[in-house]
Amino acid sequence: MQKKKIGKKILSANEEYALKNSRFLARQKKLCLNMISSPGSGKTTILARTISELKGKIKIGVIEGDIQTDFDAQKIRATGAPAVQINTGGACHLSAAQISDALQNLPLADLDLIFIENVGNLVCPSAFELGETAKVVVLSVAEGDDKPAKYPAIFAKSKVLLVNKIDLLRAGDLVDFDVERVKADARKLNKGIEIFPISAKTCEGMTYWYDWLLKSVRAQHQGLAFDR
Amino acid sequence: MQKKKIGKKILSANEEYALKNSRFLARQKKLCLNMISSPGSGKTTILARTISELKGKIKIGVIEGDIQTDFDAQKIRATGAPAVQINTGGACHLSAAQISDALQNLPLADLDLIFIENVGNLVCPSAFELGETAKVVVLSVAEGDDKPAKYPAIFAKSKVLLVNKIDLLRAGDLVDFDVERVKADARKLNKGIEIFPISAKTCEGMTYWYDWLLKSVRAQHQGLAFDR
Repeated sequence: MQKKKIGKKILSANEEYALKNSRFLARQKKLCLNMISSPGSGKTTILARTISELKGKIKIGVIEGDIQTDFDAQKIRATGAPAVQINTGGACHLSAAQISDALQNLPLADLDLIFIENVGNLVCPSAFELGETAKVVVLSVAEGDDKPAKYPAIFAKSKVLLVNKIDLLRAGDLVDFDVERVKADARKLNKGIEIFPISAKTCEGMTYWYDWLLKSVRAQHQGLAFDR
Repeated sequence: MQKKKIGKKILSANEEYALKNSRFLARQKKLCLNMISSPGSGKTTILARTISELKGKIKIGVIEGDIQTDFDAQKIRATGAPAVQINTGGACHLSAAQISDALQNLPLADLDLIFIENVGNLVCPSAFELGETAKVVVLSVAEGDDKPAKYPAIFAKSKVLLVNKIDLLRAGDLVDFDVERVKADARKLNKGIEIFPISAKTCEGMTYWYDWLLKSVRAQHQGLAFDR
């Protein structure tokens, strides 16, 4: 008698690819972080700085998602790290199938950590799993402190929130931004979210982010559960 | 014998509503501007400032699009202007059907100009016509000067580009942003685009924007063609 599979979820094509990527990355023991933010919050600058500062400690590769241009991949390659460019040609988010292809074009055996820089968009990428180990959301202080309340999905789903460009807060009253409000609103949506206020430009606060990355790469190498 | 309609374009549901809105607004001789930008570029602050400064000259109403919250509509109502809030509940752009409903809930007979503040997203809203008279794209200098090249669609389709937060450029080398690069890149995509560098916070440059608005409201009242 054939057993019935009860409650088996039917996966979308994107979810199928995401699951495949997730299993592949787990087998390879590679940490993979999906960076999501509005355009211009500083994702590429954070990545370039992180790669340079962690040189000699961990090896990082990047999958760059952009609608057009390869400006960002060029900036990553200038640090010496490998980067694969995906141009979506108009599409507002990366898909898991694109990541599956891109992973084949990175020198994975040499890498400890793969960053995916998603298309600049605080909304759509949060709805498409790529098989990443975790999501990292970036919010620049220039965008305002109401963003977790107004765009809750990505703050609810991310493991880490980087509050970037905090150097702008040191410059008098140019930017009105209450870091404590952002922390409180983000934690209302996501109790366990790690929040690091940073400036990728001046390096303020970046060591806490680096420590978290090193700890997480170690955990992934050891096959420890990574609580998303 | 039945005549064949040759070459008639089949419209999507959204395009049908957009056409209906467009015809309705033309008949009513109301100017309607669809404001599009990344989250946090300053759309609401620009609108609140514009409404206050043009009080006594033209009457403005606002349709506010947000995924969640009515923070923005509250800010608009605090100026005394009528505002209708649309919460998309996750969707990344406003639809023409939503605008069709919202127009019925504004005191149109009293208004000269209707602003639509779209969901904060530089990508998706550019693909959905709402029946607006024209699109206005906002770019904050904190987002970086590579954005027209990286997100070309909305810059190609807009009648006006507001380069906001230029007060940040006066504060030493906090923000690297070349206004001339943005102008050149935007005009490569869209020869006729009007570009106004402004600060809604300090009011720098806002009079050029106000003059354009007053001129455009007059043209719409007179039923003159508005070249998108």
